[in-house]
Order: sequence, then structure tokens, then C-alpha cells
Amino acid sequence: MTVRRLSTRSAGFADALASLLAFESAQDPAVDTAVAGIVEDVKQRGDAALVEYTHCFDRFEVASAAALELTRDELRSAFDRLPSATREALQAAAERVRRYHEKQLAGSWSYTEADGTVLGQQVTPLDRVGIYVPGGKAAYPSSVLMNALPAHVAGVEEIIMVVPTPGGERNDLVLAAAYIAGVSRAFTVGGAQAVAALAYGTATIPAVDKITGPGNAYVAAAKRRVFGVVGIDMVAGPSEILVVCDGSTDPDWIAMDLFSQAEHDEIAQAILLCPDAAYLDRVQASIDRLLPGMPRRAIIEASLRNRGALIEVADLAEACAIANQIAPEHLELSVADPDAWLPQLRHAGAIFIGRFTSESLGDYCAGPNHVLPTSRTARFASPLGVYDFQKRSSLIRVSQDGARALGRIASVLAHGEGLTAHARSAEYRMEE
Amino acid sequence: MTVRRLSTRSAGFADALASLLAFESAQDPAVDTAVAGIVEDVKQRGDAALVEYTHCFDRFEVASAAALELTRDELRSAFDRLPSATREALQAAAERVRRYHEKQLAGSWSYTEADGTVLGQQVTPLDRVGIYVPGGKAAYPSSVLMNALPAHVAGVEEIIMVVPTPGGERNDLVLAAAYIAGVSRAFTVGGAQAVAALAYGTATIPAVDKITGPGNAYVAAAKRRVFGVVGIDMVAGPSEILVVCDGSTDPDWIAMDLFSQAEHDEIAQAILLCPDAAYLDRVQASIDRLLPGMPRRAIIEASLRNRGALIEVADLAEACAIANQIAPEHLELSVADPDAWLPQLRHAGAIFIGRFTSESLGDYCAGPNHVLPTSRTARFASPLGVYDFQKRSSLIRVSQDGARALGRIASVLAHGEGLTAHARSAEYRMEE
Repeated sequence: MTVRRLSTRSAGFADALASLLAFESAQDPAVDTAVAGIVEDVKQRGDAALVEYTHCFDRFEVASAAALELTRDELRSAFDRLPSATREALQAAAERVRRYHEKQLAGSWSYTEADGTVLGQQVTPLDRVGIYVPGGKAAYPSSVLMNALPAHVAGVEEIIMVVPTPGGERNDLVLAAAYIAGVSRAFTVGGAQAVAALAYGTATIPAVDKITGPGNAYVAAAKRRVFGVVGIDMVAGPSEILVVCDGSTDPDWIAMDLFSQAEHDEIAQAILLCPDAAYLDRVQASIDRLLPGMPRRAIIEASLRNRGALIEVADLAEACAIANQIAPEHLELSVADPDAWLPQLRHAGAIFIGRFTSESLGDYCAGPNHVLPTSRTARFASPLGVYDFQKRSSLIRVSQDGARALGRIASVLAHGEGLTAHARSAEYRMEE
Repeated sequence: MTVRRLSTRSAGFADALASLLAFESAQDPAVDTAVAGIVEDVKQRGDAALVEYTHCFDRFEVASAAALELTRDELRSAFDRLPSATREALQAAAERVRRYHEKQLAGSWSYTEADGTVLGQQVTPLDRVGIYVPGGKAAYPSSVLMNALPAHVAGVEEIIMVVPTPGGERNDLVLAAAYIAGVSRAFTVGGAQAVAALAYGTATIPAVDKITGPGNAYVAAAKRRVFGVVGIDMVAGPSEILVVCDGSTDPDWIAMDLFSQAEHDEIAQAILLCPDAAYLDRVQASIDRLLPGMPRRAIIEASLRNRGALIEVADLAEACAIANQIAPEHLELSVADPDAWLPQLRHAGAIFIGRFTSESLGDYCAGPNHVLPTSRTARFASPLGVYDFQKRSSLIRVSQDGARALGRIASVLAHGEGLTAHARSAEYRMEE
């Protein structure tokens, strides 16, 4: 297959790029209506509704909601059943992810002013969080690690995992990942009903303070709906990679990096920027040669056809400018001298620097989180992190002298805003 | 008026508290439909729609969208026109708020592993943000400071303020606050149309990356709608104060603190927890004596009647437990030995410690932000801060040795997930 070829020198480039990036993310009203009904039903009827929906949607029947819980023993058994190479890889990945995230742990701080007034911020973990893990074909144990470990590092006391088991089928890798990532309790429920149960609580499933993790359209709609009752991480769009290459990386490597994004999904996006047109030809040749050997060939081909592109740029400076405009989820900087270009890159979820850093290393085990802002949201959003599982409270402790000094300012401004009680409340403290 | 009295010893206390805290935050479908139309129209027709809606909703007619812009000179003139005491109070407040927020500035970090692999996180400011400032009666210059200064401290290059001017009437205090808070450009537009203009951009108003600031139901619905296209801060509920008092603070002070919350809005919430029933009587007496003298008496009375309460608790430990359950926006800890109780308080937007720290000092000038999580969202959300105007990109730079070590782990896990391209992409880097 031939991947779409663009050049920044073409007259219609800006429009072509815009249409390449455009993604219709409008929510389906039918999904939203169905989800509204499910969420309300679980909120009202709790466990009974949860058991019914699980039977209906997941073809999984249980005698009571209690049977939906996976015991710690079941998680450990799943771990023990894995081949030792897999066990070791999971543990090595978990250890690296944990170590990286420990650097993100924020601490409380305060300072004391001359008059004895103390100001600061108290940083505390959330009490209890819910992690949604998809079941079936998109069951990724790495996602369990990437969601649970930052919560664990943050100090969250209770991490509740939900994972659907369609037809009752459990995924040992997912259960094993939960075992080593510090999940407190796990339930075999999914869909909008699982999100509703986490948000409002049922007799069996405890209500949480925040829900993170990926899911299908129903899960996404449910997360949007309960946002405010609980926190949510983000509602992610299709995954994306943007590769900036100087034309000297082995073209097979770059072709495979594009494949690794494309194999996720027919609507995933893989784009290559390079100033060397001949190199783009070589990558195209690698794509042609390597594609037939890929097990997920059909998905890769659909993704590259729908949303892929090889783009010729004037130079690497222009490539960086386009990268900032695209604000991609994953950005590979596959060039000889990355230090020369890194300072120009402002908007990206994660930057994979140098020829040896394939995105897939970051997806699994480099350490940083693989839950990243998609669809240009890297302009304002960050990777999932420990900071998503901590929150801050302002601390204000005004001394008697401070109350006099601050009272004067507050009084003037409060009267200016017409808020007399605000003013008096400050003035009382000045009178002593 | 007599404020509702509850006691934790009463049989029905849990239900009474739940019903006191319940707040119907359901969005009005009529508002949502209207907002959907306005947002789409501004997205499609840009300035023309903006000018029309401003004429229609704000009774403010301009010849062209360009006339909606407030020049830097106009902002400065507004500042210069203020009485000098007001100018000085604004500047003193801005200086304190800036100093506090400078402590929140996060920096990039990285670490190098034994094999030369470098991992880290790059922290950068957002490029351009929009600040919504309400017009009319709820025009608060302090909100301009609290939204613009953290963005400024974060290093945001362009801060775009929108403020409706109903009937063309400008608020000098708001304009003056914009002048000293580092607002880059300001436009006299408001409502859903202003939010849409900031999210999508028009010929006159530049598209921003994030929108913060309070607003009415239309503004809130519009912010929810454009969330994802841009970042938003939060969709705030009614303002709340919870006072924990040991019964030894002057009851007039506490009554006025409750008033200062209640005067915002008929649906604002003010609650006092105290182990001393006689003290609650004294606060009630202060309320009765002070209320007639308050200019916003009607609002205060409605708020206290609708949502206020004086609650007798068994002891301060129980008060702290209830405070964590309520997770209030503002929490006053008006006790003799706050250090004994502070460690027990986990969920609150801001904690005002000691008898001299009235909430109003924090609202205006203590330093911390007055934009705080409401409606129990302090369980998972934080005050507005510099961190809302910075975002992070993961940095991953794997050495050749690192690619071999990490490639082994990634390969095993990728094959486990059935993602062959991920595995090959890692394996290529191991072969050199």
C-alpha cells in the first residue's frame, strides 16, 4: 500500500494537514442516551442492576454481586501461572515505572512571613480511586501498571480495579499485573455500569473519588457523565505518533515505529516528517516489504490509509514547528543531534529522543507513563502521573499582626466589590 | 432568622446532613440546547455571530468586532481613575498573590541511568489562555487577579481576558485588575459566545489553549461543551464555608464569617460545627443582632435559610471527620490549638487556620488562590494554581545499551499483548 505523501511546499499543504488531523470526535447521542439510563439505574438499584447488566452485556452470570469480586488469591494464582519470562518482564517493567513515578511525588510546603503569618499548600493523596481496565481483545496488562502504579506511589489507600470478563473469560496477564501493581480490590465488571458503580458506590463496590483508565465509547460517555461526582483522568481519542527524522535512521526502524502505532486501531494516526524526499521513498519501500509479514496487517493498512502520511518538510526547524502545531501524543525525534532540536519542541505527550528510543520502549517499560494526552490536548494536558492522584489544600494561618495588615487590604477591596460581610469579617480581626 | 440546628447525636443526623449537602446540579437541558446553538454559530460565523450575540444578550452594539477590544491604554486609564487607596490595595493584593504562586512553579527534571539512558519530564507553560470574567453585579476584580496571575507566573505568553459589558457599562475595578495582572488583550464579550470565540478563535479573538474563570449557567455549559478542544479549569458549584470552632472565638466573628459566605448567593452554603451547644446559641444571637445591619441581608437570609446550619458535634475529632466527609471549599479551623487538629483534615480547598484567619483575608490578599474546588470535589481537585497553566511532556532518551536491556522486556510484554509491531520495533534496536 502507498501511504499518503504530502509536502510543505505544496500550495494546499495547510488544508491537507488540517484534513489529515481532523477527527470527528462527536459523541454518539444514542450511546449517550443508553449510558444515561444505565448510570441512573446503577445509581438507584446498585448491585441488582450491576448483576443484570453484566449478564446482559458481558454474557456473564453470577448468583450475587459478591461473586464479581476477584480475590487476592485469584490475582496471585494468575501471576504464578505465567511463564517465568513474562513474570520477570512484568516485574521489571513495574519496577521501572514505579521508580520513574517516585520522582513525581509532590510534597507539602509552607513559608512564614515577617509578621508570623504562615502560607503554604498541603499535598495529600486521594483516599480511593477506581481503575477501569478494558477486557477482551484490548486487554493490556501494561495499562494496569500505568494506571495503578502512580496511584500507589501517590499513597492512595484503596485502588479498586474493574475489568469486564466477557463470557466469564479472565485474562491472566491483566490479573497478574493487578497483583504486582498494588491493586486493593478487583471486580469483573465493565462498561458504563462499572463506571456508575465506582462513581456512586453499590453495596458491593465502594464509591471512589476518581476514575482513570481507557475504555470504549460507552465507558467514555459514562466517565464524562459522572465527571464532577468523581474526578476523571481524560477522555482519550485515537492514539497517535509523529516521527521527526533527519533521513539517516534505518528506514525499516521507522516503518516499524509507524506500524506499532497503526496496529492499535484503524483510526490510529502515524505521521513521518523528514526533509529528505528520497528517504521518504525508502520508508515507503520498507512499508511495502514489511507489511505482509505483520499479523495485524489489515489494521495497520487501514490505519495508514485512513490517517497516515509521509510529509516532506523544508528542514528540521520546520518539522519542529509542525510538531508543535500537531501537539502529538507520541513524538519520536530520530535525528543525529537531538539536543539541537529538543528545545524547539513544546507540545507533545512524550518525546522519544534519538534513534534508539522506539515508542514501544516507552509503552512498556522505560518508566514514564503511557497514558498520554491525545488529539492536540498536549497543548494543555500532561501524561497521567502521581500528580493525578494527589490534591492540594491551601494553608493560611494569619497572625494577629498579619490580620491587621491584610485586613486593611481586604477591607478596601471587599467594599469595592460591594461585599460588606467580607469587609467586616476582616475588620473584626483588626480591632483587638 | 433562626438557622437550622442539627446535632450529631440525633437519630436522623446522617440523613439530615446528606439532605443539607445535596445540591441539584443537573444541567438545564434548555440552557444546554441554547448553548449548543450559540457555540456552533460562533464556530462557523466567527466575528459576525459574536457581534450579533453581544448586541442581543448584552444590549451592546458595536460597528465591528474590532471595537470589542479594550486597549492597554483603556485598562491603564481605568487603573489611574481609581482612588489611591483602592489602587494600592489592588497592587498589594496582586503582589502577595504573585509571591505565593511563585512557590508553585514546577521545573523540568531528568535523571541518567547507569547505561546512559535519560528519563525525565519537561515542564512548559501553555502558549495562550483565556480568562472569563463575569460582568454586571458579580464583577469581581479579585477574580481577575486570581486567574491571570497564576498564568502569568507560569510563563503563559498571551493571556486573553473576556468580560461582558452589559449596556456598554465597564467596571473600572475589573479593568484596573487586568492592567496590573498582566492580561495581554481584553475583549468586552461574555456568555457562551465568548467561550466559543476563545475555544475556536475568530478573526478578532485568538483561539486559546485553556479557558478558566467563573460564569453563569450559560458560561458553565459552554465550558463543558468545548472541553477537549481546549482545557478548562472546573465547573464550579455554589460557594461553601465550613467553620470548625471550639466555642471560644468571639461569636460575632463567626457569625460574620458565615455571612461572608452567604452574601455571595442564595444557594451559597455556610455551616458551623462546634461541640458547645451554648456557643451555638451565642452565634445564633449574633446572627440575629448583626443581620439587620447587612446591606445584602436578603441574600444572606435566603442562603442561611436554604442551606445554612449550626451543628453540635461530640468533640473536635468528630468535627474533623465530618469536615473530611463534607470536603468543603473553605474550611475555617477556629480553635485554640489548630496544630492538634490540622493533621486530621484531609479534604478541603483551603484551610483557614486559627481565630485571626477569616476566609475573607484569603479571598482577597493572603496569597493563595480563591478559585477552589466546590461541591465535595476537594476529595480529588485542587485550588487553581500555576500548575493549571503548565503542562508536562515525558522525556525518554534510551542509550544503545539501554535499548538492549529495555528491548528484552518490551518484546516479551508486546508479544504477550499480541502487538507484534511493538515487539519488532524494540527488537530492531537490540540487533546493532
